[in-house]
Amino acid sequence: MKTSQVVSAVALAALCAPAFAKSVVVNQAVTEAEVQAAQAGWCKALVDIATTGAKSGQPAARALAEQVIDAAYGYQMGAVLFKPTLTVNPQTFRTTRAGALAYFVGGDAAFPKDKGFALNGWTHCTFENAAMFITGNSATTMGKVNITGKDGKVTTVDKTWQFVKDNAGKLRIVLHHSSLEFAGT
Amino acid sequence: MKTSQVVSAVALAALCAPAFAKSVVVNQAVTEAEVQAAQAGWCKALVDIATTGAKSGQPAARALAEQVIDAAYGYQMGAVLFKPTLTVNPQTFRTTRAGALAYFVGGDAAFPKDKGFALNGWTHCTFENAAMFITGNSATTMGKVNITGKDGKVTTVDKTWQFVKDNAGKLRIVLHHSSLEFAGT
Amino acid sequence: MKTSQVVSAVALAALCAPAFAKSVVVNQAVTEAEVQAAQAGWCKALVDIATTGAKSGQPAARALAEQVIDAAYGYQMGAVLFKPTLTVNPQTFRTTRAGALAYFVGGDAAFPKDKGFALNGWTHCTFENAAMFITGNSATTMGKVNITGKDGKVTTVDKTWQFVKDNAGKLRIVLHHSSLEFAGT
Amino acid sequence: MKTSQVVSAVALAALCAPAFAKSVVVNQAVTEAEVQAAQAGWCKALVDIATTGAKSGQPAARALAEQVIDAAYGYQMGAVLFKPTLTVNPQTFRTTRAGALAYFVGGDAAFPKDKGFALNGWTHCTFENAAMFITGNSATTMGKVNITGKDGKVTTVDKTWQFVKDNAGKLRIVLHHSSLEFAGT
Repeated sequence: MKTSQVVSAVALAALCAPAFAKSVVVNQAVTEAEVQAAQAGWCKALVDIATTGAKSGQPAARALAEQVIDAAYGYQMGAVLFKPTLTVNPQTFRTTRAGALAYFVGGDAAFPKDKGFALNGWTHCTFENAAMFITGNSATTMGKVNITGKDGKVTTVDKTWQFVKDNAGKLRIVLHHSSLEFAGT
Repeated sequence: MKTSQVVSAVALAALCAPAFAKSVVVNQAVTEAEVQAAQAGWCKALVDIATTGAKSGQPAARALAEQVIDAAYGYQMGAVLFKPTLTVNPQTFRTTRAGALAYFVGGDAAFPKDKGFALNGWTHCTFENAAMFITGNSATTMGKVNITGKDGKVTTVDKTWQFVKDNAGKLRIVLHHSSLEFAGT
Repeated sequence: MKTSQVVSAVALAALCAPAFAKSVVVNQAVTEAEVQAAQAGWCKALVDIATTGAKSGQPAARALAEQVIDAAYGYQMGAVLFKPTLTVNPQTFRTTRAGALAYFVGGDAAFPKDKGFALNGWTHCTFENAAMFITGNSATTMGKVNITGKDGKVTTVDKTWQFVKDNAGKLRIVLHHSSLEFAGT
Repeated sequence: MKTSQVVSAVALAALCAPAFAKSVVVNQAVTEAEVQAAQAGWCKALVDIATTGAKSGQPAARALAEQVIDAAYGYQMGAVLFKPTLTVNPQTFRTTRAGALAYFVGGDAAFPKDKGFALNGWTHCTFENAAMFITGNSATTMGKVNITGKDGKVTTVDKTWQFVKDNAGKLRIVLHHSSLEFAGT
């Protein structure tokens, strides 16, 4: 098939147009807009947990964090590849739900160095994607996330996410690598 | 995360809008339009081979059929799940390129019952999808294909295709099941 | 990277062996064994429905067929590309659950020509794959299915299936094209 | 379908065993072993480039780095989501081939802060996966990579990779996020 044939094939689509009255399309592809909505949702959830913690205390923040983790991450699939910004060896990676919860709101003796990242009074969160890659049943993003503290200071981190669409059509985070910017030497 | 939060997260996307000047998106998802173009391409190729055969003889039709198979099917991946309309046991399935070529243009002693389906003087071909299913890196379609012979008679077959996008971004048929309509009893 | 480097890289894997005590692997790939089990499950279900119908009547067979369809097909994803063996135009394709149920056990005025394919007293069912294609999050098969009637006569059909793994790890049929063998001319 | 039926369906596979002499299986799933080989290949390539640079100079190292990037990364797909360990804002992300090459071997005026990460005389490289996630047509890993310098000092980084299998069956890196361990406060 020559290139010209392929091109004309597209034009031919008009002549060969489908005639079924009720043609059904099930499209499970992940879209760019869905990914951006999921990223915005993560940002909003971080601020929500921080706000809840400031107003209502750690137990309330913890309850909300559990809801967020269960709705937005994919721990029910077996594990999440999660490297939070501020964890230290040998507890760098939080492949379990308990490890993620401890990172966000602290209060877990099994993770003694976790003070609760989401309890820092964050007031604002934005993301900027350097790139997005949609392939197969998942999408990955890489870029900057800017988080504003209660003192107005902005912390910028380098962040990578992978989202998989679940059976309910909702994107879930199955990979999350966050790191402080390298300051240079 | 409550439903209302998910909904509002979409609205939040405006506030959290990406600021990178050069955000890149690589999207390898198969689209409905690409599938329809590939289906139209198949229809056009069938008529092209028939026309070439009528004008220039079997060798020319065979050469074109080889081009079509190499460009539109995925035999280079190892096998294609191909059940042509008119093959008979024990050569029903044409999982090899040679088997597909023999079906379309005949002339292969290894497939003695093949007379060359594409050499029947087809003048027109249209498709009607009952349904399309896009998931992961492939798309499947099921519907009717209507082929008009030189005598103006239309043959309708039930046809299923699966398309996979190759590294060049081109859809390739990796599954093709075609059957005559059941006449009823 | 030269070929020799790629090959030696595999050997190097020993030297670079992972040292994490608790390395977790989540593998959602569809396996050949899972596909064969799903195919065997379909065969068994057909005979089960036939047996139930013979022993306990159509309502019992219908109840079982509903269980089978809900457990083994993917209608909850929006549609299934289902072309049963014996349907006739204009109700050839059964993209809805109701259409599938009517085909298997009949008794639905909306599908007046359906007598209930699964109620024919089938006693045995085997499958033979000509080919299987696993890509992305799904697998497709093409081959023969042999069904033995109560009179001992075997009916052979050409059958294509596509299976997608759901969140529970279970394969579901999202495409099913079945056709009588072409008898030749 | 009850659970017991599913289980027994597996047992039934024996009775329903495929009989085709030439059943073909095309399996494009990414395997754990392939991922580990690709990771080991990355480690080996880093040491190879360092060794080549030390023995034969930057131009030779650069030529090898180009081969490695072209063979092991997926820039030909449009972009790679690459956040190297030591890049600084606003050139943090290297979504282009040129940016990756500059990071590994320096010498590109467009990336003035790049001194050539692979030219640091690395003598050894190992990886330890905390987790691996295989879904659809790709696999992701997260873990530690330990790199030994010429002075024997080991640098450990947190590293995430995503691999996609190309049409030739080779895994390619489409995402690579590397960061220095957080030291704690």
